[in-house]
Parts: sequence; structure tokens; C-alpha cells
Amino acid sequence: MHEIGKQNENNPVSWQLERIVEELRAARSEWRSRSGRPREQGGRELPSRRSIEEIVERLASALFPMRLGPNDLREESEDFFVGRTLDSALNALLIQARLELRYSARQRGEPEDGIEARAQDIVRDFALALPLLRQLLDSDVLAAYQGDPAARSVDEVLLCYPGVLAIIHHRMAHHLYRAGLPLVARIISELAHSATGIDIHPGAQIGGSFFIDHGTGVVIGETAIIGEQVRIYQAVTLGAKRFTADETGQLHKGQPRHPIVEDEVVIYAGATILGRVTIGKGSTIGGNVWLTRSVPPGSQISQASLQQQAGDAGLD
Amino acid sequence: MHEIGKQNENNPVSWQLERIVEELRAARSEWRSRSGRPREQGGRELPSRRSIEEIVERLASALFPMRLGPNDLREESEDFFVGRTLDSALNALLIQARLELRYSARQRGEPEDGIEARAQDIVRDFALALPLLRQLLDSDVLAAYQGDPAARSVDEVLLCYPGVLAIIHHRMAHHLYRAGLPLVARIISELAHSATGIDIHPGAQIGGSFFIDHGTGVVIGETAIIGEQVRIYQAVTLGAKRFTADETGQLHKGQPRHPIVEDEVVIYAGATILGRVTIGKGSTIGGNVWLTRSVPPGSQISQASLQQQAGDAGLD
Amino acid sequence: MHEIGKQNENNPVSWQLERIVEELRAARSEWRSRSGRPREQGGRELPSRRSIEEIVERLASALFPMRLGPNDLREESEDFFVGRTLDSALNALLIQARLELRYSARQRGEPEDGIEARAQDIVRDFALALPLLRQLLDSDVLAAYQGDPAARSVDEVLLCYPGVLAIIHHRMAHHLYRAGLPLVARIISELAHSATGIDIHPGAQIGGSFFIDHGTGVVIGETAIIGEQVRIYQAVTLGAKRFTADETGQLHKGQPRHPIVEDEVVIYAGATILGRVTIGKGSTIGGNVWLTRSVPPGSQISQASLQQQAGDAGLD
Amino acid sequence: MHEIGKQNENNPVSWQLERIVEELRAARSEWRSRSGRPREQGGRELPSRRSIEEIVERLASALFPMRLGPNDLREESEDFFVGRTLDSALNALLIQARLELRYSARQRGEPEDGIEARAQDIVRDFALALPLLRQLLDSDVLAAYQGDPAARSVDEVLLCYPGVLAIIHHRMAHHLYRAGLPLVARIISELAHSATGIDIHPGAQIGGSFFIDHGTGVVIGETAIIGEQVRIYQAVTLGAKRFTADETGQLHKGQPRHPIVEDEVVIYAGATILGRVTIGKGSTIGGNVWLTRSVPPGSQISQASLQQQAGDAGLD
Amino acid sequence: MHEIGKQNENNPVSWQLERIVEELRAARSEWRSRSGRPREQGGRELPSRRSIEEIVERLASALFPMRLGPNDLREESEDFFVGRTLDSALNALLIQARLELRYSARQRGEPEDGIEARAQDIVRDFALALPLLRQLLDSDVLAAYQGDPAARSVDEVLLCYPGVLAIIHHRMAHHLYRAGLPLVARIISELAHSATGIDIHPGAQIGGSFFIDHGTGVVIGETAIIGEQVRIYQAVTLGAKRFTADETGQLHKGQPRHPIVEDEVVIYAGATILGRVTIGKGSTIGGNVWLTRSVPPGSQISQASLQQQAGDAGLD
Amino acid sequence: MHEIGKQNENNPVSWQLERIVEELRAARSEWRSRSGRPREQGGRELPSRRSIEEIVERLASALFPMRLGPNDLREESEDFFVGRTLDSALNALLIQARLELRYSARQRGEPEDGIEARAQDIVRDFALALPLLRQLLDSDVLAAYQGDPAARSVDEVLLCYPGVLAIIHHRMAHHLYRAGLPLVARIISELAHSATGIDIHPGAQIGGSFFIDHGTGVVIGETAIIGEQVRIYQAVTLGAKRFTADETGQLHKGQPRHPIVEDEVVIYAGATILGRVTIGKGSTIGGNVWLTRSVPPGSQISQASLQQQAGDAGLD
Repeated sequence: MHEIGKQNENNPVSWQLERIVEELRAARSEWRSRSGRPREQGGRELPSRRSIEEIVERLASALFPMRLGPNDLREESEDFFVGRTLDSALNALLIQARLELRYSARQRGEPEDGIEARAQDIVRDFALALPLLRQLLDSDVLAAYQGDPAARSVDEVLLCYPGVLAIIHHRMAHHLYRAGLPLVARIISELAHSATGIDIHPGAQIGGSFFIDHGTGVVIGETAIIGEQVRIYQAVTLGAKRFTADETGQLHKGQPRHPIVEDEVVIYAGATILGRVTIGKGSTIGGNVWLTRSVPPGSQISQASLQQQAGDAGLD
Repeated sequence: MHEIGKQNENNPVSWQLERIVEELRAARSEWRSRSGRPREQGGRELPSRRSIEEIVERLASALFPMRLGPNDLREESEDFFVGRTLDSALNALLIQARLELRYSARQRGEPEDGIEARAQDIVRDFALALPLLRQLLDSDVLAAYQGDPAARSVDEVLLCYPGVLAIIHHRMAHHLYRAGLPLVARIISELAHSATGIDIHPGAQIGGSFFIDHGTGVVIGETAIIGEQVRIYQAVTLGAKRFTADETGQLHKGQPRHPIVEDEVVIYAGATILGRVTIGKGSTIGGNVWLTRSVPPGSQISQASLQQQAGDAGLD
Repeated sequence: MHEIGKQNENNPVSWQLERIVEELRAARSEWRSRSGRPREQGGRELPSRRSIEEIVERLASALFPMRLGPNDLREESEDFFVGRTLDSALNALLIQARLELRYSARQRGEPEDGIEARAQDIVRDFALALPLLRQLLDSDVLAAYQGDPAARSVDEVLLCYPGVLAIIHHRMAHHLYRAGLPLVARIISELAHSATGIDIHPGAQIGGSFFIDHGTGVVIGETAIIGEQVRIYQAVTLGAKRFTADETGQLHKGQPRHPIVEDEVVIYAGATILGRVTIGKGSTIGGNVWLTRSVPPGSQISQASLQQQAGDAGLD
Repeated sequence: MHEIGKQNENNPVSWQLERIVEELRAARSEWRSRSGRPREQGGRELPSRRSIEEIVERLASALFPMRLGPNDLREESEDFFVGRTLDSALNALLIQARLELRYSARQRGEPEDGIEARAQDIVRDFALALPLLRQLLDSDVLAAYQGDPAARSVDEVLLCYPGVLAIIHHRMAHHLYRAGLPLVARIISELAHSATGIDIHPGAQIGGSFFIDHGTGVVIGETAIIGEQVRIYQAVTLGAKRFTADETGQLHKGQPRHPIVEDEVVIYAGATILGRVTIGKGSTIGGNVWLTRSVPPGSQISQASLQQQAGDAGLD
Repeated sequence: MHEIGKQNENNPVSWQLERIVEELRAARSEWRSRSGRPREQGGRELPSRRSIEEIVERLASALFPMRLGPNDLREESEDFFVGRTLDSALNALLIQARLELRYSARQRGEPEDGIEARAQDIVRDFALALPLLRQLLDSDVLAAYQGDPAARSVDEVLLCYPGVLAIIHHRMAHHLYRAGLPLVARIISELAHSATGIDIHPGAQIGGSFFIDHGTGVVIGETAIIGEQVRIYQAVTLGAKRFTADETGQLHKGQPRHPIVEDEVVIYAGATILGRVTIGKGSTIGGNVWLTRSVPPGSQISQASLQQQAGDAGLD
Repeated sequence: MHEIGKQNENNPVSWQLERIVEELRAARSEWRSRSGRPREQGGRELPSRRSIEEIVERLASALFPMRLGPNDLREESEDFFVGRTLDSALNALLIQARLELRYSARQRGEPEDGIEARAQDIVRDFALALPLLRQLLDSDVLAAYQGDPAARSVDEVLLCYPGVLAIIHHRMAHHLYRAGLPLVARIISELAHSATGIDIHPGAQIGGSFFIDHGTGVVIGETAIIGEQVRIYQAVTLGAKRFTADETGQLHKGQPRHPIVEDEVVIYAGATILGRVTIGKGSTIGGNVWLTRSVPPGSQISQASLQQQAGDAGLD
């Protein structure tokens, strides 16, 4: 507000605001009627990105109080901090849950009763899952420490590694996605995407001890399934090969269309794996590899090996 | 301020500030004389990144009040909000416009009279263009919704998709770039770049219904021209092949050197298209493709097809 | 705080906070015992990301006061601003230095005396190096201006280019890394990584007149060595080929394992160079090239030329 | 938060927090049981001083947009600002109204249905009364300008005079007090009291063209009635003489017990008028006068004249 | 903004904003025409209370850097801090000066050229007077320390005493009042009045070593003249006896109408001195005394002595 | 910062900062040498008003969590909030305690060892006293509710009454004053004084169930002693009659010089009681009474009765 709300000493110009406001209203109105959206009753009906950003920050600080919490925290008050912070974050999450459920019911023309109870159930279950979530995240932190020769301590990993930030967000988002808050979940994912360049769809299932190094440009699609002890480098894509559409051209939504990556797989930077293929347990996928079919457990795939195969077997 | 402005209880050390300040002044002075820059008269003469960030946020909230505006906005006061927010943003933009025009005049040794009138003209025209800009953005949002099977609603797209954030910034930046504020425009572009990893030069011309999915690593160059209904995935580059320089080694600036992408083209992740080539209407460019020549309308280009051609015709 | 700290008018639900707090304490406790970490005495012992962010912002504004300093700065008070800002930033840095040194001593079970003196030495040396650092950065800004045909002025480069932001952070981080504050240094690097998508390990040695264009996805490893006048584009990786581990599976840490790039080399977008190889002076590495061996000075490497060689000599 | 939320580098002391928290809980519990208060269900049930402070600031800026509104406001967007600001303030007031009505119903054990409708009615009526309220305030501003030889313009009066600030607060508070929100009203009064030292109970009835000069120490009681064109100076008290109690010692609440001041009366600094007495139209009450009985219209009361009377008639 | 800008989940009520906005516009319009005010051209034309508050805080911290400056200030950077802070405050003051001069010219229908030069002259002179002002304030601090048996150190006095805060504000305000910025000056005075309950008109002339103890309720009028070494307690009034008006009922403005208090006078709590009377050097005026005539040097005036005199000489 | 840190577009004026900075340095230097103060080693050595303000706010919210705590607090997390808030406030208080003790030792030329232990002792004792302090404050709230016919509930009293705010501050300040932190205590008192106009010296001893109504202008001196169930109105002074000085003119500091007010006394508005006199149990002192001698238990003192006595017995 302040930065631009300054006294403009010398500005008698007219912007024709009345006209522009009217034209913008017409544009909104046209859009609403074109997209068949009913007028909203009363206030805003969508979750708020900014509120969700604060909720996630608080949850992260409650999960790792001495690392991600406030600077002045001491062990004597750790539990107090955790309890207070959780309550504040969960109450705020409850509001966002209500907003999404109501919005979603209206979009589908469904009745709105029962929303409050469902919102409370979702948040209560999420709260109870936090201790387990923390343990999963501990496994991720350890995997990062063990997987990067430049890492000096688990604390450095937790404070600095964008891959760790991304997985903290993802594990929260994934829980909420499955619990029925896909929009809140997606906002959480995009917060991580913006901060790290790592784009994990909240629908993706990811096992423990997961590590993404560097991370910029990583894309993991909605229906991807990733096992335990998997390691991924920057610019790796686990994407869809092509979208199928129905006879009216509408895309089929929700179909399994992204890879399954089994336990202990390593995928090096820039590799692209597309479609519902399976990367067998313990495989290594080399940098920049372009892969659209399954490989058996223990495979070592590199650009060279692929070209060899292409030469042997005709182009893919 | 506060975070670090704390009482340092125990710090009698001397930093030799006098000496360092003096050496830094000498360094600035050398730089100014080496780059032939006149001493500035009075205050700072450049636009402010932080002010522009606030201006863009306000404009975006005036364009999409119930989606990007404040949480407590209600329909009854939508127009009031739009009018007030526009006025505040436009007045602030006027200040930035003045700063850039004056700076630019001084850099070129041109007279400074007429700057106020020009600044007002630029901002007034920009204001009047906003309704049209909103309609273009509506087409982009719709294209995103229709182009991504994971998208559940147009609202999710508007709230979450980095590609939508990038195009909102770009359409504002492009208008201002053409109107004579390339520096303000560039700052707007870089704000989007930082938040999304999508780097669109404000000079690029982009038609309606444009959609970038995931987006991290996309680069679109200054003289690129993109048609209607184009879809682009992460890590796509529309770049320059090589720069030409004059006999003194100075690069030629402003020459058309980036691709023309015609209507309804799809370019998959990681594809690199370089130089003033044309991608014909309705073509599909596969993932990771490296392309430095034009392709006719309706082409289906993949790595495999390129290698085939290379094998047929000799290497590019 | 405020955004989510609102009055929740209607929320008699219980979150079972006592139980969750207890389970989280158990999880922390298990983690601490598993990772062999002693209980912390008193307060937090790690540097603070947020404090370091403010320190770096202040140092940058002291280095480039009329460009990155406050909007209302005028030449008459430039030196005052520089002196005051430096003092404030250096005092804050001293606190972070103390925290890292103490943390590090405890991790290794070393005595903590001498830490205060060492912290002061590190910060004092850093302060005295700032004028030289500014000169190096001036060479970087000039290189960016000369290397990009879209750049209109050195000021635009300084205000807008993510590559410049990244190198400002890196040059500070690298000094502190060598001085014995690798964790503070790493936090500085990650701040730049998050803002720009450019991931330079603070250990990397980089000569003057360095320019990264666009930058998203660039990764430069810990032991990389880069000469003068080098230019790099987006998504370039200077990485390690493979990690060596000792007989227990522990990775060897700190071994030279990233490329040496000699003076005047240009590396185009998407190129990947892995391992302790040397790119000879004046070479050009083409876009998307995958390179795991040294090339002599003056080489012109492209995908095509590599495939040619591969055809000639057998696959790599 | 930040100012004190700093890293406390050296603080291994224990505060015995568990014990203190427990003792404080016991103290709260004792208080609640002693004052017969039921446990609150869910969250906080009282209006918020800080929210009300913001509401009043916004309403004041909507009433006097070019004087008390934001610095960058221009006439072209005055109405937009007023509409947007009113909406935001009224919505926030609705929340406070709900909180007070619900709290009040619970205190009295009354049913809570109908609260929402009543809250909306109160706020809607208040909103519709704002134009009239502005006109009353205009008369107050004019009275101040005309009544003080040091005043140079009506704008100075509006910007600077604490008496004007107090009457702006009072006129809002009085409306809400009568409408059934005495607690919200009282909070508004105390905000003015704290800022100006002028303590007007929201129940007091005050006619137009009212002016308090200097103001510190003025006290006007709950049942006082003040006519048109009245002028009051600092440290004037319009108080109650004594309180009457019932046989159990409970004070009678709400009885008329403060003075009636008729039109065009002037009361000089430090005068104290106690009890349900009437100061007749056009009277002047001198500085430091102590008055506990009615005086007819046109009276000129001074300390000297009172002592004269006392000498004549025996002590009061 | 945030505190009340929350999502109002359930508010479909209409406030009839259009109607209220219109009626408020009508009210403003009527007021403007009644008070003969021309429509303002462009933006706001009055100084800003909030800006002035920040300016005064900065000036105070530049005057007493180690006492009123930032917590982390150290002696090594004291001068840097002072220089930077002064520049920032003076530049901001220049804007306020311009606003008042332009406003004032328009009010009087005078030409506006020359305003810029006059504003700069005023601020430049003010800046040059600051060192002298600091010395005067040092004498005030010392007087407070010496005059209060509860004072433990000069630092306590500077940090805690409201009388010192009031005189810091007054000495700045008085300079600006005389220099031609009475409105800016008055705003400064009212800032102190609100914080301390001490109301000194900026026109009052006050000599060195001035001390007000406790202070609440003190009022010192526009034309009061106070000598050296004067001490005043809470609730003292140095006011006007009555206002004279011309034949049209307009008050005469600017006439000398407040007391002259000579050197070394002490005035105890609650005393009221009215009119252009002179309190002779070294006099003591007792608590609650009501005085409307001059007293010779060395007088000891108490309530008792006054009543004695009244008995002797007839009532005043 | 922002409000005034704006771009000053047109300000090439020079303020002669070098000269002013130098003159200010000279003025500081003169002051330091005149007041015999040693140069400070390193940083600021005095407690910070702003930090103390936050500490007091936090302590108050920990004492009355559901009334003065954050809006979103719920009973389930009350204890967590209390524990966390106490820890944060106590740690911050420890820093202020250290600063005052060190400052005080240096002022007196005493050794600084033992300061850390003493600071911890003071804060620990203070923390343990908080539950008792809360009970005392409960008695004050109840006394206010019972003593004011306009009070509708104890909650209104706690939220709105300035007298309650003042006594919350005083009870904290008094504890710290006795514990050896008179400067921190004084700052706390002045915070309340500024907000309420009630000036209670932290040295004053005040029994339970204490109530100040309205409060503006109340002054209670350092050595005053007040019993249980005392009620006081606005503008009451419990002051010193005269100060005694030693032969050098130095005031005697710390002597008992303010009134003793026994249990169940009521003192009405504007009464002034000066000197070490005793107001006997159950007495009532009328408004504006001026009293400089003791009165026996059960006295009813009014202006009239005093004048009667004066007439009877000669003037006081």
C-alpha cells in the first residue's frame, strides 16, 4: 500500500475511470454468462492463496519447530509453540476447507448442508496424520543428506534444499487432495512450484525417502506413482504422453496417464518419461533420456543405449 | 528492518567503515566515468521494481476482482473496488512512466520537455486498453482450462496456473513496451519470470487463447510472434540462433531473430526453436526437439522424425 | 499473522491438540536419537534464512546504492547511506557467523572458545573485500550488457537480469564459503536459486565478466572452476558425472568432480557438461549438447558434431 | 513480533513454564467460577478493539475522503473510494455486531436465533445514517473554526483538533449505542479517549455545532444531554453527583444522573458540573467553577460570583 | 487492512452502497459550496499527518541517535546514521512544505510560482538550525533531571519523560511555525498532544532549560512567551481570558492574548493563568491558583494568599 | 519507512549534510563531556521502549488470553498460547534486564560480572509472580465493575477501561521496580501514561481492588502507599508538597514524600493531596479538594467543609 500510495503532487489528469469501470463490468458479465457461472451470493467463494501460504508456513514450523520455527524459540517452550501454532493453522485451514467445499457444491449444483461437518472431518483427520507425515519427511531429509556429496548436515538439508521444501508442501497437499480439497491442495503445490521450480501435482503418490536434487524444472504429473528411496534430478519430467478426448473433444480427466516409478530408482537431470509406463525397481535413467516405454527392474538407461537400441530395432 | 535491526549486545568490533565507504565511493566513481554516465542530478532516476510489483498486483486485482482481489470483496462493491484500485495503480504507474521517460531522455541527451504529456498519454491509453486486455486474458484462461486434463475449473486455472500469471504480466508488459516504456515493461516481465520460471520478453507478440503448461524454463525472445490458440509446455525455447554484430563488434539490436509460431501450434516440453523460422499453422513440435528451420503448416515434428531426416539428408 | 489470525466465529470443534503435540514430540525425539543429535542447550542454534535474506538485500543496496537502494536516496547522502547500511548488515552478519561457528563446533564436538574472535575476523575480512567485489560485479554487469542484443542499458541489466542477481549473491556466498561459513553461504545461494532458478553452489569459482542469460535451470556444481568472460544460457548444467563412495557406501565429499571452463567460453541453452573435464579457452558449446569429456581450446561443439564423432568413433 | 522475536543467543535458563501455565490456568478457572461465567464454546466471543479501530478509521476516511483518506486519493476516484471503503468497513462492523449480540445473549441466557438479522439491521441502519452524520460533523467543524481565534482554516481544524476527532468517534459510537451495541460503542469512545484525553460516554446526547477546545481531561457522562452550539474547554466534567444503590448495595444503572446543557452554552476550562441539573440556554460557566445545581438561561457563573452567593446564602 | 479485510463467509446483505455514496457526495458538495471552497485540482492538497509523524520520529532519532535511534546502532556508524536519516527526513519534509505552501496560496488566491524555492529555503534553514536545537534540548533534559527527585539519570529523562517528548516536538514545530508552515507545525504539536496530553501551540515562545513534569492537561497558548529555567506541572493552563471580535462577530486572530512567564518561574499543578499578564522573574505560582493579572518578580502566589487578597481588596 | 521513503522526483537541492552532521557530532560530544559520560563501548546500552511495549502486550495477553489475546484463540489451545507467549516475553525481558543492569553498573562504575545471573533471577522471580499478579488484577477488574454504574460486565471493564489498562501496567512495573529494574519499570509506566493519561510512578504501592475511573490527569507519586478497595477519579493528584535539597542544591531523592491512602477511601475528581499525609480508612475526599494534611478515618472532606474550617481556624 505505502510504496505506491504516495502523494501525487501534480496529477490533474483524468483517467476516464467511469468508462473503464463500466467496460470492465461488461467484460466480467460476458465472461460469467459465457462460462455459465451463476452470480455469486455475497462474498468471495474461493480459497485464498495468501491464507494458504500462511497456513503451510505455520504447519511447517509446527512440524520442525527448532529449524523452521521462530528465531527465539527455545526447547522449554517447544510443545507450547507446537500446540498454539497447530491450533491457529488448523482453524485457518478449516475456513479454507469450508470455502472449497461450498464452492465445489455450487459448481455442481449440489446441496450445501453437511459441508461444515465434512470440513471439520477433513481438517481433524489431517491434524491426526501430522505425526506420521513428520516421520515421512524425516526419511526424505535423510535421503537428501545421504544422496548429495555436497550436503554437510541434515540441518543444512532442511534449511536449504528446495527439494525438501517441495516435498514438505507435497506431502501436505497430497493428503488434502485425497481428502477432497483438490483446490486447496493445488494452491499448496503451486506455492512450492513458485519457490523452487519443482512442479509436483498434488495427486502424485510418492513413497518415503524421496529426494529431488537442484530441482528446477522437475514436473511430476497427477497420476504418477513413485516408490521408496527414489532420487530425481533437475528438469526431470514424469508426464503424460498424450491426452485422450471423448467424441466432443472434451479431454478425459483423471485417467492414469503418468509413469510408475518403482523403489530405488534414480533419474538423472533432464530425463523425460512419458505415459503410463513402469520404471522397474532399482533402475537408473540417464540424463536427458527420452523414454516412453516401460523398463524392467535393474535397467541402466542412457542416451547412448537408447540410440543403440534404436539403431538395432528401428526408431521408436 | 526488524529482523536484523536488533540490539547487538556485545559488539565493540570496528568494521573500518570509513575506509570501506571511501573505497566503495571510488569504485562507483570509476564505474561512472568508465561507462560515461553523467552524475545524477538530485535523486534516483530509475523506475522502482517494488513499486511496479505493487502496480501490477493492483491492476491484476482490478481485472479479476472476485478472484485476485481482497478476500473480503463482495459483488455489491465490485465496481467501487475496481475504480478505486485502478486510480491508485494508474497514478503510481504515471510516476514510473515519468521516471523512465526522463531517464531515457538523459541517456540520449534529449530535451526533457514534453515528458509529462507523453507519460500521461501512455498511461491513459493503457488504461483504456484494459477492458480489451481482460477479454484476451479470458481467452487465455479458457484455453488453459480446455488444454489441461488436470484442470477442474476456470477458477482453479486463474488462481493456480503459473502460465496464467505469466500471461497476465506479459499482456500488460507488452502494451507498455510498445507504448515506449521498455524498462518498466522489462521489470514486469522479470517479476513473472521470478515467480514462475517463465521468461517472456515484453517485446514478444502473442495472440489470444495462449496457454503455457507447467512453464518452468520457458524462454520466448524479443521478436517472437505467436498466433492464436498456441499451446506450449515447460522448458520450451523460442530463441535466437546467433547474434549479428557490426564491424566494431557491437551487437545489432532489435533485429527480427526469433521464431514465428502460427495459429494452433502445440510445442511440447523441452523443444528448442531458434532463429527467424516459421512454424506453420496447426503443427505439433515434439518434446526435446531441436529445430532451426521453418516447417510447413500441419507438420508433426519429433526427435525421431528429425533424426530420420538427418539420416536422409545429411546433418543440419 | 493477520491474514489467518481472524476471529473464527463458529468453531467449537476439538483438534485433539494434546495428543498430536505429544506424538510430534515423540517423532522429534526419535529423530534426534536416530541422528545422534544432542539436545540443544537453550535456544536455536542455526543461522536464520530470513535474517540472511535481509543482510544480503542490505549489502546489495550498499554496493549499488542508487540502483538497488531506497527510492528516496540522493547523491548527497549516498555515503551516509552506504556507511549506515554496511554497519547494520555487518553486525547482523556477525550474529549469523557466530551461530554457524558454534553449531559447527558442537556438531564436531570441538571446543567453543575462539568462536567470537573467528566470527569477527570473518566478517571484518568480508567487509574489507566488498570494494573489490563491487568491481568484479561491475565487470559482470558490463558483460551482460554487451552480451545481450535486447539489453538497452547497464541500468536495465542491473535492475532486471536474473543472472546479475544470481552473481551478486554468488560472489558474496563464495567469499563466506571460503572463509568458513558454508551454511550461511548455502542459504545465500538458495535465496538466489529460489528467485531466479539459477543454482550455483557457493563453492564454485567464477572469474570476472561472467554472464548468465535467462538462467532458469542453470546448475553449477561445488567444485566447478570458471574463467573470465564466460557466457552461459538457461538450463546449462556443469555437474558431476558420478559420485564415488567409500567401502561403507559413504559418498566421498569435497572431491573435484565438476568441469573446468576456461576463459571466453560460451555455453548455449540446455547443454550438460559432466565430470572433471576441461572446456578449453574460447570454445563454444552448442545448445542441448551432452558432454562428458574435455575439449581443446577453440572447439565448436554442437549436437550434430557430436553425433558425427559418435558415428566416426563409436558411441561414447 | 519481530522487535522482540530475536535470536536469544545465550539463554539456557528455565522459566518453569509448566508450573506457571498451570497456576495461571487455576487463576482463570477460579475467576470464571467466582464470576459465574460459563465456559466459552469454541472461540473468543467478544468484539475486538483492534478491528473496531480499523473500522472507525475507514469510516472516518469515507466520510472525509480528501482530508482523512489516503494520500494518493484524487477527486476522480472519490466516490469509488467511498463505496469500496464503506463496504469493507460495514462488513467488518457486521462481524463485531454479531459478536456483541451473541455475547450479550449468552450473558443473559437468551436464545441466539435472530441475532444475524438484528446485526444486519443495525449495520444497515447505521450505514444509511452516515450522510446525516457527516452533515452534523460539518457543523462541528465549522463551530470549531469559528470558536478558536488560532484556527486558520476548516481544514486545519479537521486535521489537527482533538475535539473534532473525539466528536467523530462520539457520533458513530452514540448511534451504535442506541442501536443496541453498547460494547462496540464503548470501545469506540475509549479509542478517542486514549488519543485525545476526551472521555465522552457513548450514551451522551450531543446536538450539532459542538466544539471542545484542547480537550484533555474532559469527561461527559452517560446520561448527559447537550444542546446545539455548545462550546467546552479542557478538563470540564459533566458528571454524576452521587450514585444511588438498592438495598443490596447494587448500584442503580442507567438512571439520569448527569447534567442537561442547553443550546449556546459555553463552559470554560476545569469547570465541574455534577448531577441532573440544567444549564440554561446561552449561559457561560467560568473556569474551575464547581456547580451542583441548575442555573437559568443567560447565567454568567464564575468562581467569584459563586463565592459571593455562598457568602450571601450560606455554603452549598 | 488485514485485521478487518477477512473473508466474510456469510454475508449476502446489501448495504445500498450506491445510495449512500450518492448522499455522501451531495453532503460533501454542499459543504464545499457553503464554505466557498473551489474544487481541488487533481490530488490531495494538504500535508499528511502520518508522513509528518515519521518525519518527526526520524529527526528525533537523528538528534539523539544512541538514545532514540534504532536498537542496533553503534558508535562507529553514528554519523552515517545521522546523515542518512537527516536526508531522508528533510526530503520528506520538503514535500510537506510544498503541500502547505501551495494549499495556502490557493486558499488566498495567490500565485503559486516561487513556492518551490520558498519550500527549499524553509527546509534548508530548518536543517541548519538543528544543531542549535539539539543544544536547547540538552538544556531541557538537564532541567528535567535536576528538577525531579524521582529522576535517576539524564537517559531516563530522555527515554521516559513526556515533558521531554513534548518539548522536542515543540522546538521543531515552533521553528516551522515561524518559518511559514503553521499547518505542518500544528500537526507536529498535536502529535505530541495526543501522546502526552500536553498541548503547546506551536506559536508559543519558550526559552531554554524548560521542564514540564507529568504534564497531562497542560495547555500553552499561541502567543505565550516563556523565559529560561521555567518549570511547569500537570494541568497548568497559560490561556486567553477572552476573545475579542470585530463588529461582524469575526474573532480577531493573532492578537497577543496569553501570559508572559519570565525566567525561573515555577507553576504548580492545576494553576490557570489567563490573559496577557506577566509573571515576574523567579515567582512561584501555587497549585490550582486562578490568576488573571500580572505579578511582580519573586511573587509567591497560593490559593490562600489569593483569597486573603480577595478578602482585602474585593473580588477580582 | 515507506510512507516517507518515496521517490522525490524533483529535488536537486543540497542540505549541506556534511556540515550539519559535523555540528551535531560536536553538540553530542559537548553534551557527553559536560555530563561526564564515558563513551559507550560498542552498541546501545539502554533498554528499548519499543521492545518493552511488545513485552508488556504479550504478558497482558498471557494473563488474560481470551480477552486480550489474539482474535482466533480458542479454549483448546489457551494453555499452549500462554506457555509460548510467556516464553517469548520472558526471553525478551531478559535482554532488557541485562541492558539496564549493565547500564546501571557502568553509570556507577561498578563491576559487570554477576549481571547475567542477576538478570535471570529477576526475570525468573517475576515469572513466578505472574499467577498472583493475575489474581490481584482480577480484584481490580471486579472493583471497577462494582464501582461504576455505567459498567455492564466485567468483560467491558477489561476491554475498555483505561484505569484497568493502567493498573495492569503498574502491577508489572512495580514488581520490576522493586526487583532492581527501575528504568524498565518507568518505561512501562510511561506507556500506560501515554495511552491513558494516568501517571502512576512504578514505585507507588497499591493494594488490591483498586479502581481509577476516567483517569485522565491522575498523578500518583513514587512513595505513595494506597490500601485495599480504594477508588480514585480523574485528575486526582497524590503528590509531593515540596522537595528538600541538600546544601549544594541537590534534591534529596527517594525520601517518603507522597500520601498514604488507607483502605476503602474514595477520592473524587480533581482532588489534590500533597505531602506525606495519611487519609484515614473509609474517608471520602470531595472533588477539587486541596489537601495538605492528614485526616482521620471516616472523614468526609469537601471544598465547602474545608472553607468552613479555614474560616474557623485561619487559612492553612
